[in-house]
Amino acid sequence: MPQRLADLDANATEPLRPEARAAAIAALDLAGNPSSVHAEGRAARHLLEGAREHMAAALGIRPAQVHFTAGGTEANATAIAGLAHGRRVLVSATEHDAVRRAVADATILPVDGEGRLSLAALAEALADGASPALVCLMLANNETGTIQPIAEAAALCRRHGALLHVDAVQGPGRIPLGPALAVADTMALSAHKAGGAKGAGALLVLGEAVPAPLVRGGGQERGLRGGTEPLPAIAAMAAAIAAAEAWRQTGGAERLGRLKARIAAGVAAIPGVTIIAAGAGTLPNTLSLALTGAAAATQVMALDLAGIAVSAGAACSSGKVGESHVLAAMGLGPLAGQAIRVSLPWTATEAEVDAFLAAYAAMAARLARKAA
Amino acid sequence: MPQRLADLDANATEPLRPEARAAAIAALDLAGNPSSVHAEGRAARHLLEGAREHMAAALGIRPAQVHFTAGGTEANATAIAGLAHGRRVLVSATEHDAVRRAVADATILPVDGEGRLSLAALAEALADGASPALVCLMLANNETGTIQPIAEAAALCRRHGALLHVDAVQGPGRIPLGPALAVADTMALSAHKAGGAKGAGALLVLGEAVPAPLVRGGGQERGLRGGTEPLPAIAAMAAAIAAAEAWRQTGGAERLGRLKARIAAGVAAIPGVTIIAAGAGTLPNTLSLALTGAAAATQVMALDLAGIAVSAGAACSSGKVGESHVLAAMGLGPLAGQAIRVSLPWTATEAEVDAFLAAYAAMAARLARKAA
Repeated sequence: MPQRLADLDANATEPLRPEARAAAIAALDLAGNPSSVHAEGRAARHLLEGAREHMAAALGIRPAQVHFTAGGTEANATAIAGLAHGRRVLVSATEHDAVRRAVADATILPVDGEGRLSLAALAEALADGASPALVCLMLANNETGTIQPIAEAAALCRRHGALLHVDAVQGPGRIPLGPALAVADTMALSAHKAGGAKGAGALLVLGEAVPAPLVRGGGQERGLRGGTEPLPAIAAMAAAIAAAEAWRQTGGAERLGRLKARIAAGVAAIPGVTIIAAGAGTLPNTLSLALTGAAAATQVMALDLAGIAVSAGAACSSGKVGESHVLAAMGLGPLAGQAIRVSLPWTATEAEVDAFLAAYAAMAARLARKAA
Repeated sequence: MPQRLADLDANATEPLRPEARAAAIAALDLAGNPSSVHAEGRAARHLLEGAREHMAAALGIRPAQVHFTAGGTEANATAIAGLAHGRRVLVSATEHDAVRRAVADATILPVDGEGRLSLAALAEALADGASPALVCLMLANNETGTIQPIAEAAALCRRHGALLHVDAVQGPGRIPLGPALAVADTMALSAHKAGGAKGAGALLVLGEAVPAPLVRGGGQERGLRGGTEPLPAIAAMAAAIAAAEAWRQTGGAERLGRLKARIAAGVAAIPGVTIIAAGAGTLPNTLSLALTGAAAATQVMALDLAGIAVSAGAACSSGKVGESHVLAAMGLGPLAGQAIRVSLPWTATEAEVDAFLAAYAAMAARLARKAA
């Protein structure tokens, strides 16, 4: 790999936290299947239930509400497909593919120019339907950082007998989860988006409605997700979520917010730059920057060559960089194909931010010269 | 934990192979999401595709046939639910819950007294139905070690236009997979049953039929399993499968077979002992032992107290030890609730086997005195 100056793509995956690394390795070294009854099995079960208690305590919920999965996508898919029986599924237009593609026939709800769900459209859709609904609304968007009006949406859901599922994958370590935990019926979390290892997630069942499982198998996780539990990734997830939440509450998130403000200030004078969702409440680590006339793919590649990792939209399987469905839904027109996402990891430094600013300014100047 | 003398429950989970441990830790330390386009993402993609190539080479198949999942249960569920559209599902009576519970309405096919699928019953079921079928037959049983007549079943499937899915979770490192790979349409593997870490599996798509995904998400793994790939467990799986297969081919499996024969000889003189499936071809590491009049749960607990880990049936979520559906299907009557499974790990030693034999003989004598 050539010299790397800054990895500012935390919303694709956060750097592993040391607490998570240690927990994963300890779990790797533990023999035993948590479903076995002998001493080796009981030791594995003890580790699993300890992780569940640790994570629940960090989130202020009960351990029995935590159901581990293999990742955020599986947690979202289980919640949505598993609650959709007899319910219409309503999803906001800027949801992640993990949510948008969880069922085949979801109704898409519009967002405003900052990416916030239209509560009027939600109210109308809830009032319209014959059958009860399941509403899917993310805590904060992975591309723009826009924080959704969860409390207001939850109140509408309650009024109409609808369930609310919250994809909170981008939340831990960045903004408080408590308000959403208090009103959501189910919530999905991902380990590796919070400084854990790839390979674990959690489906939190907060209300009375219990999703049907996607995979039954041996009935693990209270029947919600069959299969031997991915213990190393689960142990790492609990350690990461607890560490990320403690870090957030002791100034970590504010520090990232200051670095993000430094980026916003640094690009303000560059011609053609638009900060997306500037009028919304956003994640402290996430900044979406459009550069008029410059294709997102060009920008990502130019910055990559300069040693800076950022992204355009979600990390998706195709490895392609196209127009973002999130930005298109916000009505940004051509800018939807001209924006990059800068997402600061918990390890971000001022030096990395300044390296980004220098590379971005040079790139913008070069592209402007070309266009002239 | 009290002093442990022998963990002979490898069919619940094999001890981690050192190659797998090293690969998992290297992958833990690699930042980057394999779906990101920048250098960090490409490095993660390189690791993922390297693991796929490594595992495919060890199995003698093409990398594009390997689809990683979060485990064997998910691989089985995806294959079966994903191929069942418009097909009747026929499963042998001794399949694992991961297969038996993959669809709600499977037809159960009987087995003989050694646990082998009745080919006559399969032929009849295939000839009977109006719609084409999907047949699920495991390579070897987790409780008895019985090896199924895959080639014969495959020939019947071919004749009737049926697909064949093989749960080969207990195979790697124990018996050759080649004959089943040559005739199956799909095959499921598990990492941790082969010395890898918990949290990865693989669905091998060997024929033309491609299952529909259970989880779409971002379309990873050629659309077969959405969600960021569990890289540490995948890297460990490829290393483990390759190491286990090399080990099997260089005398490892024969060594386990000799240790198993030592157990069979050692218990032969104990009154009331029956070796289950003694007349069938079985896995070299697996021995199912019934002790007339002694409940399986009692035996497992007595041996656990003596420092020996064995099991009664599959490790299942309930942690309960009940009658085995596998042994009941074999027509063993009361013995179905009186059998334990001894499954030798790749690390098993003669000393561990002798410790088991001493503990087992003492337990049998004690239970016989009690009954007298």
